[in-house]
Amino acid sequence: MTLDDDEKALSKVTARRDALLQRARTLHISTSSNSGENIEWGVAPYIRRNNVFYIYVSELGGHVRFMLDKRPVLFSIIEDEKVAKNIWARIRLKFTAEISEIKRGEAEFNAICDDIGDHHGSVMTVIREFSDFHLFAIDPKKGVIVTGFGSAFKVSGNDFKLESRLSSNG
Amino acid sequence: MTLDDDEKALSKVTARRDALLQRARTLHISTSSNSGENIEWGVAPYIRRNNVFYIYVSELGGHVRFMLDKRPVLFSIIEDEKVAKNIWARIRLKFTAEISEIKRGEAEFNAICDDIGDHHGSVMTVIREFSDFHLFAIDPKKGVIVTGFGSAFKVSGNDFKLESRLSSNG
Repeated sequence: MTLDDDEKALSKVTARRDALLQRARTLHISTSSNSGENIEWGVAPYIRRNNVFYIYVSELGGHVRFMLDKRPVLFSIIEDEKVAKNIWARIRLKFTAEISEIKRGEAEFNAICDDIGDHHGSVMTVIREFSDFHLFAIDPKKGVIVTGFGSAFKVSGNDFKLESRLSSNG
Repeated sequence: MTLDDDEKALSKVTARRDALLQRARTLHISTSSNSGENIEWGVAPYIRRNNVFYIYVSELGGHVRFMLDKRPVLFSIIEDEKVAKNIWARIRLKFTAEISEIKRGEAEFNAICDDIGDHHGSVMTVIREFSDFHLFAIDPKKGVIVTGFGSAFKVSGNDFKLESRLSSNG
């Protein structure tokens, strides 16, 4: 590959990353128990503000209880099956993050819940007062983006800056 | 709820379960390292034959290496964001399973790879000979299906038989 080809490849991946983040509405959450023997997985609608993701989720979900227990979490965002050009290479991003809970009563809580409601509809009005729900701020640290068959890049920071090409799909 | 209502609810969930399994093309794979500190997640096109799922995946993916290491795995199948009637309640199924590898040279290997190719297209022709790829049979044991807000059921067996309603979204 020439330098030009490299730049073209990078700008294509960048465009796909940005389109994925703009279009996707939910985050996948994978986590495990202390021993690593129990795996939990869930999905949650998100909003993204200043590169930080916010989700509002119920502790009735095992994955949320593990988040509250500060277990390691891997987040993922993936394009729909239907829009994937190649089902073997759905465009997807996975990442670790710094997770913090924003408690009811904190200054940000109401503003962010309002934003989630604006973005994801009226269910928020119903669940907003439910005490089993928690608001989390998710600040991405590092991860991998896959944008095609054999096209995978390491990313870093909450802007998912492309770092280096991986020899695998990560 | 009357008995009639119960039956109606059950038949609705059953229909949604069957529609999900018929429409979805990929399985999500969540797993963890020995210590549980490293979470891995990936996605793979599947076929389902006699209630057993088959995927053909590369060990270059960390989640596949954990599968080969016999780490605990949670599988999930989820409807696309776009078709979800309610983004807070995407129809989804998560389950544990008995996993076995079907090695190259075993009688089933070629027939199943043919089926995967028929179902998921020409990429299979390319990757079929790649030695980093492994064919797994995934025989579901138990799990949870969520078909709406507050509608979650325990399921069991590889036919995902509905067992009991959960008070949460599991």
